[in-house]
Amino acid sequence: MTRGAKMNAEAILDACRTIGGFSDDPDCITRTYLSPATRRVHEFLSAWMNRLGMESWIDAVGNLRGLRRCGLGDAPRLLLGSHIDTVPNSGAFDGVLGVVMALALVEELGDFGLDYDIEVIAFSEEEGVRFRIPFIGSRALTGEIDEALLRERDADGITLAEAIGGFGLKVSEIGEAAMSENTFAFVELHIEQGPVLEDLGLSLGVVEAIVGQSRYDLTFSGKANHAGTTPMRLRQDALTGAAEWILAAETVAAATPGLVATVGRVQATPGVANVIPGDARASLDIRHADDATRRAAVERLVAEAYEIAARRRLSLSVVRHFEQPATAMNSALASSLEAAAVASGTIPHWMVSGAGHDAVVIARKAPTAMLFLRSPGGISHHPDEAVLPEDAQAAFETGLYFLQHLNPAILAPKAPQSAAETIR
Amino acid sequence: MTRGAKMNAEAILDACRTIGGFSDDPDCITRTYLSPATRRVHEFLSAWMNRLGMESWIDAVGNLRGLRRCGLGDAPRLLLGSHIDTVPNSGAFDGVLGVVMALALVEELGDFGLDYDIEVIAFSEEEGVRFRIPFIGSRALTGEIDEALLRERDADGITLAEAIGGFGLKVSEIGEAAMSENTFAFVELHIEQGPVLEDLGLSLGVVEAIVGQSRYDLTFSGKANHAGTTPMRLRQDALTGAAEWILAAETVAAATPGLVATVGRVQATPGVANVIPGDARASLDIRHADDATRRAAVERLVAEAYEIAARRRLSLSVVRHFEQPATAMNSALASSLEAAAVASGTIPHWMVSGAGHDAVVIARKAPTAMLFLRSPGGISHHPDEAVLPEDAQAAFETGLYFLQHLNPAILAPKAPQSAAETIR
Repeated sequence: MTRGAKMNAEAILDACRTIGGFSDDPDCITRTYLSPATRRVHEFLSAWMNRLGMESWIDAVGNLRGLRRCGLGDAPRLLLGSHIDTVPNSGAFDGVLGVVMALALVEELGDFGLDYDIEVIAFSEEEGVRFRIPFIGSRALTGEIDEALLRERDADGITLAEAIGGFGLKVSEIGEAAMSENTFAFVELHIEQGPVLEDLGLSLGVVEAIVGQSRYDLTFSGKANHAGTTPMRLRQDALTGAAEWILAAETVAAATPGLVATVGRVQATPGVANVIPGDARASLDIRHADDATRRAAVERLVAEAYEIAARRRLSLSVVRHFEQPATAMNSALASSLEAAAVASGTIPHWMVSGAGHDAVVIARKAPTAMLFLRSPGGISHHPDEAVLPEDAQAAFETGLYFLQHLNPAILAPKAPQSAAETIR
Repeated sequence: MTRGAKMNAEAILDACRTIGGFSDDPDCITRTYLSPATRRVHEFLSAWMNRLGMESWIDAVGNLRGLRRCGLGDAPRLLLGSHIDTVPNSGAFDGVLGVVMALALVEELGDFGLDYDIEVIAFSEEEGVRFRIPFIGSRALTGEIDEALLRERDADGITLAEAIGGFGLKVSEIGEAAMSENTFAFVELHIEQGPVLEDLGLSLGVVEAIVGQSRYDLTFSGKANHAGTTPMRLRQDALTGAAEWILAAETVAAATPGLVATVGRVQATPGVANVIPGDARASLDIRHADDATRRAAVERLVAEAYEIAARRRLSLSVVRHFEQPATAMNSALASSLEAAAVASGTIPHWMVSGAGHDAVVIARKAPTAMLFLRSPGGISHHPDEAVLPEDAQAAFETGLYFLQHLNPAILAPKAPQSAAETIR
């Protein structure tokens, strides 16, 4: 369909593996924000950008950026990219694939005439490993790096501001990292990090929304007592109450399309085999693409917890730790990705992203869309993370068709999209 | 009904509180095996024994023993007593009450003519705190202190043999601690350590059996996965499987009279809020007075665990850690206690002991029975542990009537009782 495409798919995966060799740890892939390995990735990618005739620069938070100008004055600009940091002991494709794919597409375009500029971005920080705060790279583009964030310290006590200075960058120039006013859209290609596409036997997914999420801790409290001398009917067992609620969370989620609810952590106190638990604490992570659906599910699960506690003569404490609204993708942009996939011979799956991405941040300022590639085994954040060459091929051909046919006029430039936008 | 009884009940509780003042820790009641506080208890109790004209001695494992001779040659001997060690931060009555009550009864008997001797025993070790092995005191009476046990070490690396020597006792004399061949019965008074008598509004319980127990660890294993990107139907969540089984254990126990099943400990791995648990381990403590009933319940719960695991695509590992058969009390002896309570104006409750006691060990060699006193709030092993004066009074009067009317001929001397004996 497009010239040289077959060769490029394999080359894309090889480039990702090459970048995987730039690691903080010689035994596995670990690349934290502004580590020495980050500089080697910058060198590798900026050399590639220069080969392609792109202007390249590293902004003040360490994002590597490369610009392909279309030659028109004051042209609208498409942002294309993903992140280059990793979790500890990661795979080679999470984030990196979206950057490499963007450069491969620019290479494939060659001198193909477009009426918009393309800025490829390798976001320096998305995973939140070093400062326990994610999206530092993309926040610089949306003007969300504030003084409090700059004072955050890593595990060695180094502040974000010091880390930036130590890498040879200037905190005073962070303002200049903001996205161009000409930006009309952001598109991120990323591995799915879940089993949905594999389960369907499909290569690609077009993301319609990134889930909103809530995190809670629920603590059931009863009465610790002797496991031998306390008859069943006289017990106030906190753990059996928590167990009933854990199943309720599973049941509510299974009955609500698109909802995921997870109890990842549970603790019984005193936690001794021959003592009836007096307290049982359970975490709740609950996500959905529609905020009202998520909130209704939370309300129902909290109500069920109180009902269970009352029936079992337990008390209950409910603490909310975190809440983030859903992010709708721009439907015109997403539909263009779908059309490009179909035109390239691949039927994509419309899907929701259950994980956060740089796209969540950028969508606050610019129309945004994401294309997912199947994750074999649903595996990510793990050395076994993989991408099938046929899926990379399909994504590459879809991306090329998309870029060659994209009309900036379908999007209202600079209009941030609302989370309330209708989700397909 | 018996002279001076009203006064003695209050004195009994006071004596227990006095002994509570002999502690390893000045801030709470903690009295571990052969600690200096043990010696002070020995002094207090042996002085009392001597005042009563009893022969007293400390055997080679530190049990304090006092003999009231009836004056007949080669008389049958009744053992009466309980233990004087405690768990850390204990109450004043667990164990101690049974020893004090025995001496108060001997005091109350005065020169009342009996046709059997009474040996009061203050067992030195029952809780298993120091060497993590319980019943060292009573094992000496049944000849169950072996070389392996003597080599066990406490937290400071001191062996049991060294601890005995350090207290001024001789390991070589342990054989002489064995119970007299004339022993025809053992009776232990103890607080209930549970809520049953309080729930019934009764002062006393006659123990018909001490439960057998099994302890297991069950580990459900599924697949750890991303809490956001893994749809509910594609999960293999180990914790929801464990939660279902925890409720099954509760349901089976509630439906089986007398059965108690407790999951006191649960652990989800990796134990992070946003990761679906790949493993979930739960403990099981299950007890019943009838071994066949307990074993059938264990079999059913293990079968349910396998059924749950199969349905949820989990694997399951089941490990048995501990198993102890039930101990039936001697029914003629227990019936004598019941008759004594009724004659003293108290209707006792026939009940099962859910906790282990020295009576479990002694019953292997001699007909044994136990009388329980109500535990207010079901509290034990805690500073709030209490005994109501009216209950101490009822137990004292019951004990006195029992001793005054006991006929050694109702029991076959030295015939160990079988766990298969019919339980009322």
